[in-house]
Amino acid sequence: MQSEAPAFRMYDLITKKKRGGELTEEEIRYFVNGCAANTIPREQEAALLMAIWAQGMTDTETTEMTIAMKESGETMDLSSLPGVKVDKHSTGGVGDKTTFVVAPLTAASGLTVAKMSGRGLGHTGGTIDKLEAIPGFRTTLSMDEFFDAVRKNGLAVIGQSGELAPADKKIYAIRDIIAAVDSIPLIASSIMSKKLAAGTDVILLDVKVGSGAFMKTLEDAEKLAQTMVNIGERAGKRTEALITDMNQPLGLAIGNALEVAEAVEVLHGKGPEDVREESVMLSAEMLYLSGRGDRDACRRIVEDALNSGAALEKLCAMVRTQGGDDSVIRDPSLFPQAPFVHEVLAPWDGYIVGMAAEYIGGVSAMLGAGREDLGDAVDPAAGILLKKKCGAQVKKGEVVATLYTSKKESIAEAEKRFLEAVSVGSEPPAPRKLIYARVEKDQVVRY
Amino acid sequence: MQSEAPAFRMYDLITKKKRGGELTEEEIRYFVNGCAANTIPREQEAALLMAIWAQGMTDTETTEMTIAMKESGETMDLSSLPGVKVDKHSTGGVGDKTTFVVAPLTAASGLTVAKMSGRGLGHTGGTIDKLEAIPGFRTTLSMDEFFDAVRKNGLAVIGQSGELAPADKKIYAIRDIIAAVDSIPLIASSIMSKKLAAGTDVILLDVKVGSGAFMKTLEDAEKLAQTMVNIGERAGKRTEALITDMNQPLGLAIGNALEVAEAVEVLHGKGPEDVREESVMLSAEMLYLSGRGDRDACRRIVEDALNSGAALEKLCAMVRTQGGDDSVIRDPSLFPQAPFVHEVLAPWDGYIVGMAAEYIGGVSAMLGAGREDLGDAVDPAAGILLKKKCGAQVKKGEVVATLYTSKKESIAEAEKRFLEAVSVGSEPPAPRKLIYARVEKDQVVRY
Repeated sequence: MQSEAPAFRMYDLITKKKRGGELTEEEIRYFVNGCAANTIPREQEAALLMAIWAQGMTDTETTEMTIAMKESGETMDLSSLPGVKVDKHSTGGVGDKTTFVVAPLTAASGLTVAKMSGRGLGHTGGTIDKLEAIPGFRTTLSMDEFFDAVRKNGLAVIGQSGELAPADKKIYAIRDIIAAVDSIPLIASSIMSKKLAAGTDVILLDVKVGSGAFMKTLEDAEKLAQTMVNIGERAGKRTEALITDMNQPLGLAIGNALEVAEAVEVLHGKGPEDVREESVMLSAEMLYLSGRGDRDACRRIVEDALNSGAALEKLCAMVRTQGGDDSVIRDPSLFPQAPFVHEVLAPWDGYIVGMAAEYIGGVSAMLGAGREDLGDAVDPAAGILLKKKCGAQVKKGEVVATLYTSKKESIAEAEKRFLEAVSVGSEPPAPRKLIYARVEKDQVVRY
Repeated sequence: MQSEAPAFRMYDLITKKKRGGELTEEEIRYFVNGCAANTIPREQEAALLMAIWAQGMTDTETTEMTIAMKESGETMDLSSLPGVKVDKHSTGGVGDKTTFVVAPLTAASGLTVAKMSGRGLGHTGGTIDKLEAIPGFRTTLSMDEFFDAVRKNGLAVIGQSGELAPADKKIYAIRDIIAAVDSIPLIASSIMSKKLAAGTDVILLDVKVGSGAFMKTLEDAEKLAQTMVNIGERAGKRTEALITDMNQPLGLAIGNALEVAEAVEVLHGKGPEDVREESVMLSAEMLYLSGRGDRDACRRIVEDALNSGAALEKLCAMVRTQGGDDSVIRDPSLFPQAPFVHEVLAPWDGYIVGMAAEYIGGVSAMLGAGREDLGDAVDPAAGILLKKKCGAQVKKGEVVATLYTSKKESIAEAEKRFLEAVSVGSEPPAPRKLIYARVEKDQVVRY
């Protein structure tokens, strides 16, 4: 067999990109496939990623990179499932439990939810960690079991297979050690490669913005959203994004079982207004993208599914089908309780003007709700329940939050840090929007 | 023993640099020493070098990097040698044989030349390859032999020890594969780390500019020169640079023995005017930097050393002391001759307006004068003698150049490529300067 010279040289790709040039589809595929196959020296992988960090990528390059990463591994074929297959993806925030409301709401509204989710690495667990707070719930199903579950209930959520977009996994690992994570085209292609591989017809992106989110400004959040939406639409998927607030945690609960319980409360017609409203908006938009009528009509369908209890029944059905005990869904007070409960009292009088979400997420992790390494276990019962949020008036000695943990020794430090995360003023803060904008293909509609 | 956390994290250094920040002396030492000791993941080394490529370095950073690389290995202590120890360094050009004129000229003028040089990787050989074209000449001496030779003749040139600035060697190898060679602060620190390690009191830099040089524009050449001069001066060495032309080869000879023979011709009072003038200018400037009087006086000393034959005698003495046969120096026609000699005839009438030096260097390498890998041998007799240079009027059928080789099969292609490197016009080109500028600390004097 004759050994062939490679079609491209990494040296030339790095040279082109460092000078601001545009890589071709073939060059991007050469890079992505070489990363996945470990045939490119790591110095060159790192150098090209840093050059991309510095020079950016065009929409065409970003789309090609996304598709190349998607095609580096398995892709889900959901075409044998009935109905419009939908997915919602959040860029990540503290207290974000909308998936547990949106998935049953949209399924109860007639959409098909066949979702693969990841574990968390950080403040709190990921969707899979939170689902595992439901006693008996199985997040690992065979593909046949998964498809059967979706056919039966219109809804199933399982852990992500390791085989989706392996090139993304490899590239992300390099970005992570060379400080090249914070690049909008690289973030967009990483997220979208996995979303495209997951095979749904509709993708709704929930892009968080604010002090507790990766995107700190509305401009950056819109840019990331626009990049991802354009990739999805170029790849033939109905894709949109909502830009939602992450200047304080969403809802009152932070932690795995605590968050699922709060989502379940919303399905019971209770729970915090922000979680309910954001979940309804996201669900209605998914119906709209699935062609179920104008936005007002879609919202009415979703509210009916919520108010009738149909969404709650969907969640119970999913839990039962995946081996879980749905009694915790019918009565969330039955979720496992942490052995140590500590009330944080206000040391000041005034109005709460800020709650640093990321910092509060760190406090929750300290209590046991998050992990440092992927191998670590999370404590399903650990976390924080807020009693006050931004805008609330507080008097000295009032309860601001309750901490839940099995690590008694962490309480004093967690309380100290929690209070550091809360800013107090003498005047109430200006109210914030919950949803700032909707991002469609080549268009931003601010609310 | 307790294992200590490292004082710095590469992640933080990359983050700072990619955002345009200035690295501290300690951070730069951490990076340079980590590269030399192979304790830093190669991805992170590459990412920081690419970030430096994109963001540049301040003069302070560049100096700290130079000093850290210098201190990564052995440094020469020349203090036991008498007189002012001087060094000249060329950034590299085709046909650049001034070292073989300048070293004996400055030694004959009373300066001390204790020089360590490298082999070439490219068009033609390096100084060491050229010296080895002298029958019997030994470029490997023990340190005692080297110092004794300098004491005896005021002049010795040997091959570079592998131990000078090993961190530079490691960092250069990474830059080479990640397309991060063309960075002025990285080039400057690489050259100057070795010059500072070589331990001379005076450093004169010959920075080539033009189509055949690494620096294509006068602005870039001045910037590189200024960066290197400032490093040298900050490190306490008398340092200056001359910016010299490399839009066509220097002199008429390209190739190892051919170049040494041409330099020897200059010492005999013959040879091309450009080689003579540039060598005299460089030598006089080295005397000036050594405090031997004003520039006019220094030039007179150098011209005396040349015209009296004292410089020729110095070269003969050096050759004999280092085991060589000085009969080739007394009569350069005795240099080894190539078995195949081919005259290139002009296929056109007109004026020569351009001679692409780098391309002509490639033709010389093809004839056997250069190497592709460091392990390759060079053919001392191979190369090119130009008969015409820029500005000359040429008639069809006249000899433009003579090719020398032992590889008969390469002649046809070499001739074709040589002619491609020559541009012809109907009018003579505007005359070019040989020396464009002198660069002193924080100051450029254009000629």
